[in-house]
Amino acid sequence: MKSVSALQTARYAYQPKLPAVLRDNEPENVALEFGKPTTALADQAELASLFKHTYGKPEALFKKGANPAAGKKIRVGVILSGGQAPGGHNVIAGLYDGIKKGNKDSVVFGFTGGPSGLIDGEYVEITDSFMDEYRNTGGFDMIGSGRTKIETPEQYAASVATAKKLDLDAIVIIGGDDSNTNAALLAERFAELGEKTRVIGVPKTIDGDLKNEQIETSFGFDTACKTYSELIGNIGRDANSAKKYWHFIKLMGRSASHIALECALQTQPNVCLVSEEVEAQKMTLRRITDDICSVIAKRAANKENFGIVLIPEGLVEFIPEMKSLIAELNDTMAKHEAAFNALSDFAAKKAWLKSNLSAASYETFDSLPDAIAAQFLADRDPHGNVQVSRIETEKLLASMVEKRLAEMKKAGSYTGKFSAYTHFFGYEGRCAFPSNFDADYCYALGYTAFMLIASGVTGYLSSVRNLTAPAEKWTAGGIPLTMMMNMEQRHGSKKPVIRKALVELDGKPFKTFAAHRDEWAVKTSYLFPGAIQYYGPAEVCDLTTKTIKLERC
Amino acid sequence: MKSVSALQTARYAYQPKLPAVLRDNEPENVALEFGKPTTALADQAELASLFKHTYGKPEALFKKGANPAAGKKIRVGVILSGGQAPGGHNVIAGLYDGIKKGNKDSVVFGFTGGPSGLIDGEYVEITDSFMDEYRNTGGFDMIGSGRTKIETPEQYAASVATAKKLDLDAIVIIGGDDSNTNAALLAERFAELGEKTRVIGVPKTIDGDLKNEQIETSFGFDTACKTYSELIGNIGRDANSAKKYWHFIKLMGRSASHIALECALQTQPNVCLVSEEVEAQKMTLRRITDDICSVIAKRAANKENFGIVLIPEGLVEFIPEMKSLIAELNDTMAKHEAAFNALSDFAAKKAWLKSNLSAASYETFDSLPDAIAAQFLADRDPHGNVQVSRIETEKLLASMVEKRLAEMKKAGSYTGKFSAYTHFFGYEGRCAFPSNFDADYCYALGYTAFMLIASGVTGYLSSVRNLTAPAEKWTAGGIPLTMMMNMEQRHGSKKPVIRKALVELDGKPFKTFAAHRDEWAVKTSYLFPGAIQYYGPAEVCDLTTKTIKLERC
Repeated sequence: MKSVSALQTARYAYQPKLPAVLRDNEPENVALEFGKPTTALADQAELASLFKHTYGKPEALFKKGANPAAGKKIRVGVILSGGQAPGGHNVIAGLYDGIKKGNKDSVVFGFTGGPSGLIDGEYVEITDSFMDEYRNTGGFDMIGSGRTKIETPEQYAASVATAKKLDLDAIVIIGGDDSNTNAALLAERFAELGEKTRVIGVPKTIDGDLKNEQIETSFGFDTACKTYSELIGNIGRDANSAKKYWHFIKLMGRSASHIALECALQTQPNVCLVSEEVEAQKMTLRRITDDICSVIAKRAANKENFGIVLIPEGLVEFIPEMKSLIAELNDTMAKHEAAFNALSDFAAKKAWLKSNLSAASYETFDSLPDAIAAQFLADRDPHGNVQVSRIETEKLLASMVEKRLAEMKKAGSYTGKFSAYTHFFGYEGRCAFPSNFDADYCYALGYTAFMLIASGVTGYLSSVRNLTAPAEKWTAGGIPLTMMMNMEQRHGSKKPVIRKALVELDGKPFKTFAAHRDEWAVKTSYLFPGAIQYYGPAEVCDLTTKTIKLERC
Repeated sequence: MKSVSALQTARYAYQPKLPAVLRDNEPENVALEFGKPTTALADQAELASLFKHTYGKPEALFKKGANPAAGKKIRVGVILSGGQAPGGHNVIAGLYDGIKKGNKDSVVFGFTGGPSGLIDGEYVEITDSFMDEYRNTGGFDMIGSGRTKIETPEQYAASVATAKKLDLDAIVIIGGDDSNTNAALLAERFAELGEKTRVIGVPKTIDGDLKNEQIETSFGFDTACKTYSELIGNIGRDANSAKKYWHFIKLMGRSASHIALECALQTQPNVCLVSEEVEAQKMTLRRITDDICSVIAKRAANKENFGIVLIPEGLVEFIPEMKSLIAELNDTMAKHEAAFNALSDFAAKKAWLKSNLSAASYETFDSLPDAIAAQFLADRDPHGNVQVSRIETEKLLASMVEKRLAEMKKAGSYTGKFSAYTHFFGYEGRCAFPSNFDADYCYALGYTAFMLIASGVTGYLSSVRNLTAPAEKWTAGGIPLTMMMNMEQRHGSKKPVIRKALVELDGKPFKTFAAHRDEWAVKTSYLFPGAIQYYGPAEVCDLTTKTIKLERC
């Protein structure tokens, strides 16, 4: 049997594009041009004191210019951190190719299993043949990933020890907001100790919430959204062919609804919920249910007893009474852990909750279908908390809607037929072959990370911008990580963190959606984006996301 | 906003390929060459008497030759029947283009909403611009589909009346085994009445079970399996990156496991269940659970606490004790409908079942997790039967496996960690843009259907063969529908039906899988087929299914 698929074989041959400045000049002829010193998003004084050696550095952009150090032999370690995102392997490929172009005797190590690989000193040396197996492929299987945070003094000490043992000139951390916060802290720590190891971050996450004035998009968002939109489009076409089912589709994206919103713009469903709007408008579960039912009733009046509803994964945490319920459950179950765990079945637990939750929260709990309510109590995370990502919000809504429609039918305000299917798309998109956009963007981010190392900076994020133009017109440079930070409450104390980007309700992507949703609700307007194409017409293969196009054009 | 996606716009320009004999010759220069008379698969005498006018006709193949009637003006109606399958629109396109090539004044009607469109006389006339909106697209939304069977004398009379009213020379029925059985009966009916309307069938179904000596594959199977395999491959890559989840993935395909088997050959999962084998080996739920647990334990011993399990949709109907349970439930709930429906909740229903099911079936029912057991009682179909397609077999197995692993852990025979996610893929694949294979195959089937009409035959299936060769080397012809039939028990009486093709346990696809599965079980061997490509290298775009390749090469 074959060991790789036909597409994988073909993708090995793809040569990702670079910004012209990096493509057309040897590393020795590309140098950083520094702008003005920067400040943090907020809490500048606190951050300046926490990051004494790395705060306030200038933004920097690569231009043609002498960079004699770029040919030096260096030793670099790279880490994949957190959830998978398409293109991670291409970041490593760009970094590796840059480093080897700088000096063929330079060495690249991959820390295995995420940040714990740095702490525990577990790594592999990356060779040409090892690298070649992973070019333009999805997944993080090349060196694995993990969610360990470098937090304790012991973990910092172990990380420093590994860097010293391997004589590392730099560490590149490919991750989301938390991992890049970690990169900033680690950069500061090395600087403070006077160690030579520099730290560079790379913005990864399919969720699209690592984005700001300086970062146009995180990698993986493009491919993941296109994969989900392919499936939503296919289901929309099926719904419009069979004309008998409502499909409730939950989409990954816990803290922000960028994925759901982007997929809505790509597929034009009848309903798309946006957590940020639910929170801003304090929409209750009842209100959300009623809104969906109103769309269903309108469509039923047109004899269209089918439709598509998109639901962001984290929705329940943004519905006010559900948020309170979850907080109370976490609190109560933690406080009375032994007593709660001793209860044998759902009925006993429910009875117990009746006397241990506030009346309001118990009422909310009691209003849920049993099968869903049970999910709030089962599968708690290692801290004993409700595992929100295991709650089948798509089934919850389908079930609430079904119940409400039955009431409306009795009252004569609804005369259609309702039959629902539910879906959850997440794992399907995190490891797809990166789109040409993500393949190019990631390769450029990795190559830029090398150039930042070669330019001697630390505590910077690899930055590639002007992404709605063709790749050769992209710019490459670095952003001080502290520039994107503020102080936030985490586990009871104030911590420096990179601020997450939520969907802005006055931003163009949401406003575009909001301007069309009433029409899409009633009039079947589905788009069918189809499978991601890596070859063929440019207008198919080189599409960016609607989000970045609306935000940047 | 755009009304069609970039890929859809691009696909409009695709010109599907035809077998050389149809491509290189005008319809007037292509004629049927008839072979020897045929017989049925079994029950020849009964079928000969049921199909007095259409039984025993010869197989026929198109060759270069005079066919002066092909230029005649004709009127044809077309029906999409049953579940969606990628390529249905291209059958209509091939038929339409053939008919218009024969005579530009010929007329094509699309009956809307499936066979009921013929019965009720609901149709649209297909025009150039209407046709052009649907070329090379997925879905059946062009004219809709439906599951109505033409069965009663009134339905036959209404169908004949519609054909007469529209002065139809022919009706083309695009459907699965049942719909083509219906086509055969309708052809016989028209012949018996001396009506001119001829009936031609086209083999559709993503399930792949309309297949035999004469039909190499049904259309849609290729695209659907590639779409599911894309997703399975992505999830496999994710599992192998995160190294912490087992994914239990149910795949559409109720009566036969062709889809699961094909996806297994395309993706090399750790486990793939095949219903036909489960039935042949009388595998109990306990045995299946134990087999999966044994694989999980072996992988855990290698520190690989992750994996992929593929499950065919219809599995529960092939597990002996579950089959008995379902049959008893259907019987009991029908007999005591009122009493059963009066029971308010699951606990009451379960108690009632204890005294109304056999001890063996109640024991089976009682062994199921409550949430799954409840699915056997809810959502019954219009006949009051258990809706097998609504049973979350993937959750059932994940849950049984989790329970059994906990026992094994206690006993010391398992030391890993187990965390599962479940998925069901079905609706995602039925309306994908047809792969180049399905786009070409369907177009050729439609064009061939026209040529069969133009050649004056009835009760034939449009047949395109030699499908593992390039399209120009395909052959085109017709197969008498009765040739694929036998008599089977349906709803208490013997009926003529086209025999469904199940997975053959001594066929090459299954044997290839069986030869590798032990290795795939333990050693991570996932393949990542990626998204269907419509452009680019031929070795990526023109892949056939592994099933047809193994069966035909």
